[in-house]
Amino acid sequence: MITSTSNNRIKNVIKLCTNSKARREQDAFVAEGIKMFIEAPFKRIREVYVSEGLQDKEMPVKCRDKLNETGYETVSSQVFKKMSDTMTPQGILCVVDRKEPELDSLIGTDTSEELHVLILEGIQDPGNLGTMLRTAEAAGYDLILADEKTADLYNPKVIRSTMGSIYRVPVVYSSDLKADVLKLKNAGVTVYAAHLKGTKAYNEVSCGSRVAVMIGNEGRGLSDELAAMADEYVRIPMKGQVESLNAAVAAALLMYELS
Amino acid sequence: MITSTSNNRIKNVIKLCTNSKARREQDAFVAEGIKMFIEAPFKRIREVYVSEGLQDKEMPVKCRDKLNETGYETVSSQVFKKMSDTMTPQGILCVVDRKEPELDSLIGTDTSEELHVLILEGIQDPGNLGTMLRTAEAAGYDLILADEKTADLYNPKVIRSTMGSIYRVPVVYSSDLKADVLKLKNAGVTVYAAHLKGTKAYNEVSCGSRVAVMIGNEGRGLSDELAAMADEYVRIPMKGQVESLNAAVAAALLMYELS
Repeated sequence: MITSTSNNRIKNVIKLCTNSKARREQDAFVAEGIKMFIEAPFKRIREVYVSEGLQDKEMPVKCRDKLNETGYETVSSQVFKKMSDTMTPQGILCVVDRKEPELDSLIGTDTSEELHVLILEGIQDPGNLGTMLRTAEAAGYDLILADEKTADLYNPKVIRSTMGSIYRVPVVYSSDLKADVLKLKNAGVTVYAAHLKGTKAYNEVSCGSRVAVMIGNEGRGLSDELAAMADEYVRIPMKGQVESLNAAVAAALLMYELS
Repeated sequence: MITSTSNNRIKNVIKLCTNSKARREQDAFVAEGIKMFIEAPFKRIREVYVSEGLQDKEMPVKCRDKLNETGYETVSSQVFKKMSDTMTPQGILCVVDRKEPELDSLIGTDTSEELHVLILEGIQDPGNLGTMLRTAEAAGYDLILADEKTADLYNPKVIRSTMGSIYRVPVVYSSDLKADVLKLKNAGVTVYAAHLKGTKAYNEVSCGSRVAVMIGNEGRGLSDELAAMADEYVRIPMKGQVESLNAAVAAALLMYELS
């Protein structure tokens, strides 16, 4: 049992929780909680830590069985608290391989195949980002393309709010979002943006089978440059004095309607 | 200028920010930021505090004009930091009258009139709550009816995330939610709940002009008792392995479709 936070492995887990550079360098992230452990793809699990305080009876059978397969390290309750990002830790966390997909292979070469992409520019709120990933999976979206100003998806708060969707929806961080959006357009994808200039309401659009939806920063919206790349502007009707919707809500309305 | 946090008025503002009982007892809440001050209904503003650090040139004209009308108290930057709930305070906050509307008067007696109600049971996340209020206004919903287990809408984090909708959408906290839902039903309101048992998809429902949508706790969903009161269950289709959507996302999809 590990009882000290000066243990090098423990120090590294804490680093992976708090430092996005370390996550990139090591190509790994930390997923905490029973559900997140159960849903983690077996092949991508690098390390598992269980708190001494976690009793067998508190675990679903699936969790116990999986622990037997993966193996794990026991740590003292105190050490686990330091590793954990939550107020009331469930007592289990794992280090998982990041999977950095290639945009080209995700787009594919067959332009008759269905493809649904959520494009994000400068999303700042980790909760919004996690919610969008979860909604994207539910709406049947195939991938998320985000610029580098978008918050780091692999921070523990985002990971948890994805409820496991992070294992299943590929996310590409783009160093040149405009070039990558152009790549999508050249591959037969129609790009929609919610915009005040939109003449059609979002639920009046009849879209094809290759669709991308663009969502911009919570405060500023999409940059003019990126907005100009949209094939069609759509309007989300807003009553009262509301100037804009929460970014995750706008993304949900558009993804569900354009799918 | 107030320079000490032991000033009684300052102590009270801090109490109103942190203590929901104090907010109830005093029938007041604190709204922070320039936008929240500008949008606050004039008659409901009790007190205004401006940080000495806030320069005239940082304020929109609307804000300066309104300050001239309401009057305000200047406080030192240090005191303002203590009063503020944000990391980077904008330097203005006001104490606002809570308006506790009566459900009966909101329902009205004319059952041919349009009425759209969002019913909340045990919503815990302040961010979700604020987002739902903002979406409710945008979707043209007339009122929110929440049980007492739902988080306090008047905490500063929720207030901010409503982006001003808190001034415009009436919220009734119910001590007996089931009785109040029955009241709505008796007034000709059709009550919908998102439920796995739903046979119709949420976007296949043709609803009338008096509609209520029920949303339950983030983890547990609606209680069986409340769900049983719904006139119709609707399904939000979910692909992949998603078991449920974020509560604010589910509320947005339903409100926008059933309006």
